[in-house]
Amino acid sequence: MNGFSFKEIGIIHSPFTRLEDMPIQPFFAEGTEGTVEIHQPYAKGLKDLSGFSLIYLIYYFHLAQSAKLQIKPFLDDKIHGIFATRGPLRPNPIGLSIVELLDVSENILQIRNVDVVDGTPLLDIKPYIPQFDQVEVNHVGWLEGKFEHINHALSDDRFAGDKRKE
Amino acid sequence: MNGFSFKEIGIIHSPFTRLEDMPIQPFFAEGTEGTVEIHQPYAKGLKDLSGFSLIYLIYYFHLAQSAKLQIKPFLDDKIHGIFATRGPLRPNPIGLSIVELLDVSENILQIRNVDVVDGTPLLDIKPYIPQFDQVEVNHVGWLEGKFEHINHALSDDRFAGDKRKE
Repeated sequence: MNGFSFKEIGIIHSPFTRLEDMPIQPFFAEGTEGTVEIHQPYAKGLKDLSGFSLIYLIYYFHLAQSAKLQIKPFLDDKIHGIFATRGPLRPNPIGLSIVELLDVSENILQIRNVDVVDGTPLLDIKPYIPQFDQVEVNHVGWLEGKFEHINHALSDDRFAGDKRKE
Repeated sequence: MNGFSFKEIGIIHSPFTRLEDMPIQPFFAEGTEGTVEIHQPYAKGLKDLSGFSLIYLIYYFHLAQSAKLQIKPFLDDKIHGIFATRGPLRPNPIGLSIVELLDVSENILQIRNVDVVDGTPLLDIKPYIPQFDQVEVNHVGWLEGKFEHINHALSDDRFAGDKRKE
């Protein structure tokens, strides 16, 4: 099996300095503003990004401890495979969030609906394109019906685990 | 700046053995079936994934050559920043596709609308959750109006470039 090496292209800043206060997804982080600081060597790659309302942030769950292949996710009390959840304790701790892009000024992005902890290392940005990214869904597995009574959700100990092995 | 090391958790198999024949996104790969073979050490992480109609595949653009910060994307004849496109020549060559999940049997997933080249290394799988992933869009930047007259699109030389520097 191969290994791949990725680099930090920027840092995500948010008001969430403690994991305990962190929302689970932008869905729950509605209105929360933050910034993304792109490291200077990559700033040229932002040309024309400002035309997009929404962007994907792909980032490294830097606070996640060692991977767990099965977990009890925030929205359920049953055990599920990690790939059937959006939790951070993944074999490759890659996070994915859709945020609103408010402004791009040189290497700084102003964003809204940010749901990651302050200081999260950024790996990639992609434009959110409804023709690619909005697909009709029939089933959402164990999440069926879970969203009906939720108004506000905070993080729990999803990041806790044994120390990640390098 | 930090570096992060990721591992291959599986391999994506598709009918596309040549880059030239490859569609750009699942949007253009409608109906194309493929499989994902998860390496045995990670198979336990698939528990309950089968309940989801759609999944994100996060993968490594293994054929992408060195990154280009500005490119002329497939759907336009103007130069745009790489982060304003979905092209492969990114500083971290991470690909993101939404595919239909047809079946999960042990460590093998049957998928539809696959748009990646055969043999692509898989990094992560996440369930597609409409409450998180379907967000109202106002603007799609340089892509505005580009989808109107497209029925079928094939890849071009988007992967070409100088040899990737390690």
